[in-house]
Amino acid sequence: MSKKLTKRSEDYSKWYNELVVKANLAENSGVRGMMVIKPYGYAIWEKMQAELDKMFKETGHENAYFPLLIPKSYFSKEASHVDGFAKECAVVTHYRLKTSEDGKEIVVDESAKLEEELIIRPTSETIIWDSYRKWIQSYRDLPLLINQWANVVRWEMRTRLFLRTAEFLWQEGHTAHATREEAVEEAKKMQGVYANFAENFMAMPVIKGEKSENERFAGALNTYTIEALMQDGKALQAGTSHFLGQNFAKAFDVKYATKEGKQEYVWATSWGVSTRLMGALVMTHSDDYGLVLPPKLAPIQLVIVPIHRTDEQLEEINKKVEEITIALRKKDILVKYDNRTTHKPGWKFAEYELKGVPLRIAIGPRDLENNTVELARRDTLTKETVSIDNIAKKSKNLLEEIQNNIFKKALDFRDELITEVNDFEEFKEVLENKGGFVSAHWDGTSETEDQIKKLTKATIRCIPLDVKEEEGVCVLTKEKSSKRVLFAKAY
Amino acid sequence: MSKKLTKRSEDYSKWYNELVVKANLAENSGVRGMMVIKPYGYAIWEKMQAELDKMFKETGHENAYFPLLIPKSYFSKEASHVDGFAKECAVVTHYRLKTSEDGKEIVVDESAKLEEELIIRPTSETIIWDSYRKWIQSYRDLPLLINQWANVVRWEMRTRLFLRTAEFLWQEGHTAHATREEAVEEAKKMQGVYANFAENFMAMPVIKGEKSENERFAGALNTYTIEALMQDGKALQAGTSHFLGQNFAKAFDVKYATKEGKQEYVWATSWGVSTRLMGALVMTHSDDYGLVLPPKLAPIQLVIVPIHRTDEQLEEINKKVEEITIALRKKDILVKYDNRTTHKPGWKFAEYELKGVPLRIAIGPRDLENNTVELARRDTLTKETVSIDNIAKKSKNLLEEIQNNIFKKALDFRDELITEVNDFEEFKEVLENKGGFVSAHWDGTSETEDQIKKLTKATIRCIPLDVKEEEGVCVLTKEKSSKRVLFAKAY
Repeated sequence: MSKKLTKRSEDYSKWYNELVVKANLAENSGVRGMMVIKPYGYAIWEKMQAELDKMFKETGHENAYFPLLIPKSYFSKEASHVDGFAKECAVVTHYRLKTSEDGKEIVVDESAKLEEELIIRPTSETIIWDSYRKWIQSYRDLPLLINQWANVVRWEMRTRLFLRTAEFLWQEGHTAHATREEAVEEAKKMQGVYANFAENFMAMPVIKGEKSENERFAGALNTYTIEALMQDGKALQAGTSHFLGQNFAKAFDVKYATKEGKQEYVWATSWGVSTRLMGALVMTHSDDYGLVLPPKLAPIQLVIVPIHRTDEQLEEINKKVEEITIALRKKDILVKYDNRTTHKPGWKFAEYELKGVPLRIAIGPRDLENNTVELARRDTLTKETVSIDNIAKKSKNLLEEIQNNIFKKALDFRDELITEVNDFEEFKEVLENKGGFVSAHWDGTSETEDQIKKLTKATIRCIPLDVKEEEGVCVLTKEKSSKRVLFAKAY
Repeated sequence: MSKKLTKRSEDYSKWYNELVVKANLAENSGVRGMMVIKPYGYAIWEKMQAELDKMFKETGHENAYFPLLIPKSYFSKEASHVDGFAKECAVVTHYRLKTSEDGKEIVVDESAKLEEELIIRPTSETIIWDSYRKWIQSYRDLPLLINQWANVVRWEMRTRLFLRTAEFLWQEGHTAHATREEAVEEAKKMQGVYANFAENFMAMPVIKGEKSENERFAGALNTYTIEALMQDGKALQAGTSHFLGQNFAKAFDVKYATKEGKQEYVWATSWGVSTRLMGALVMTHSDDYGLVLPPKLAPIQLVIVPIHRTDEQLEEINKKVEEITIALRKKDILVKYDNRTTHKPGWKFAEYELKGVPLRIAIGPRDLENNTVELARRDTLTKETVSIDNIAKKSKNLLEEIQNNIFKKALDFRDELITEVNDFEEFKEVLENKGGFVSAHWDGTSETEDQIKKLTKATIRCIPLDVKEEEGVCVLTKEKSSKRVLFAKAY
């Protein structure tokens, strides 16, 4: 398979699909809309999981696991929730197969029909709150701070690797609190954790904000979001955290005894990020040569490629590389030495560029003589000859620099693509030709939001947390407005 | 809820069920046969996962993720596999729900029927080998060493928490090799990894052996197993590793080009352990007071409980405990300080006994004066007064001692319950009254094995790897036999 990618400027969407497959991140499976996450892609996801899990535990959360299948009737208990979710679910109706009478195939055993259909979880609020009723009795049981790592299924019609798949992996936090204030604080705190992870590990700048009513999670009173911007100027919702009020507590009858002995419904939050972040990671940093990975999430941070003609030269290089590797590992750098003789150096250079390995060392006989190596950066595609003596320290510093540099680059790009507009012609023009976030006044109604979406395909991505109070008029209706919100076309 | 457990001697099965629930490991959910793994239980499972995952990676395996749902037709491709698995599966037939016409409930949307039913994976050989066809072209792509952490569903009729549940969590390794020898070696190697994990982390002695044909995995040419013995004298299959020959390669047409350019089918293995290990862990070590956890898998290794009457005393104790905690953490001991004033020391003692925390420190005003603490061991239920000065070193050593002691205890118990018998009356008598493994000659036929199972409920657990050649006659048929095998009643 050729490693050459379609250029982003030619066809961004095609570039993305090719890159995900060629870099061995994921591929489509024989099951409609479901992907296979390949080892290299999964290794990146594992690093994301590890960091997020640590952050969740540091903020007091524990992991647990709830059933994959949810009785259909559970979904009916929270009215707004069922409207938002029940439509696109995988439904289990039978629990047995049998060999057909002619013995040639297997068929569903019609006698093994479930009395009540089971739904593969599209999200777990209902099954979890059914447990919380048993777990929560008194104020001493609160707050209850639980997270689950799980797979979920949503029967999406149009799917794309990582960005929208019928099955995806995610984590879902579900917490219960004694007071409204505490639950709101939790929802905001987890939005903060997500923003911290996105910016400091994925090197992906995000805007923290609240969703408009239209874009809220089904069953939430408020949804806090982090919104990122991809290189094609489209926004991507990277994580959401919901304040659920007492909706689920009431639907599943979860009450607690206060210190004074009164019975009260508890307050809830839920929050999640998914393998969609993998898509966001790819689209934020990568270029026409392949992936560009932030060092903090790269399964291989530095690859070493020997350049040699003879076996003797390779042996000499191997010896030197062993020293170098020890020094690098002492600094906790994830190193790979690729001295396969089945592939040429040029092939390897292209391969590790495609895979986004942040640093590459090439070392040949001349380098041995000079006690140097050639050190190449993936982010800038620059090379320099450096001494072996302080290669570990140099590499460590460069990894940090790359992490900062790609964040800065993405931030500059993003900031350049936030445009304030004041009338609807300009709104359309910017959306059409420049892309990115359009900062505009909005009259606060769902009708206007719907209308704008119909006319431009843009939705309100969020009402930024740091929004300034500002007199203005709605970009569409000219009704009065007190603040700007961010519109964009989105993934 | 009372913390008192039914005694093991009264009703072992009831003791187990109560313990799992009261120690907050797991509980039944509203979905038939599916459990909720509660935070404390999940924390133990996470430690198991982390150790196993490390071992898999150290032996060259990478993680990946394959779809939850498998097209029905995939199961028909490997004939013996479908017989073994297709019977007890959750079948997805529809992909949408809708609100009923009266608007009162949600119903399956009959217009959203799948053309081909999808099965929730009971195991993933078929979907994985469907991918391997694309991944494997040449000898350079081999060996392919992949593991997956996943949930699976098997529609079990009689379920018990952890031991047999309709959904469970597990890992499944799936490897492909160029030669038969290499695949057999891989299968045996992973059996060794499992035995190492069982004995050195779970402190659970296991017998390594091969399964008889009757007990093999559906589609395997050979199944390597590790068999443990529970305190009620019943055996438990704790992990299996299968040599699959070329069955799946042929069913899914997975060939590779040899160095010489010939096309050959690849050779396969698969291997797995599951949350069933949680049940084995509980039943191997625990007692009438609750869990006994091996220190290497205990989420809390040492708990500190203050004994005080006044707030001033508690403050003094808090200060001292801070010092102690720092010293303990320096030795990587997982410490919890429970200074809640809502619960009495006696309640806490019982609670942490129930939860199997290996070491407990109690500290009161008199201890402060004497620079001592009371140190209690969970495994032996003994206590001693020790100086605070070298408490960290002492605790570290004790944790090691406990790990070794509970393994030794389980090993002695297990060895005591391996009984050689030479005729069928003795066979039945030992099974009925003593329990454990019965070591007996067997004529090697499935018919005899079936007959013995019918008469005694015992199955061949394994043909031990270290079996000695020995002339003898089958315990049932008196046919000639060259070695003893192990029978037992099993979970």
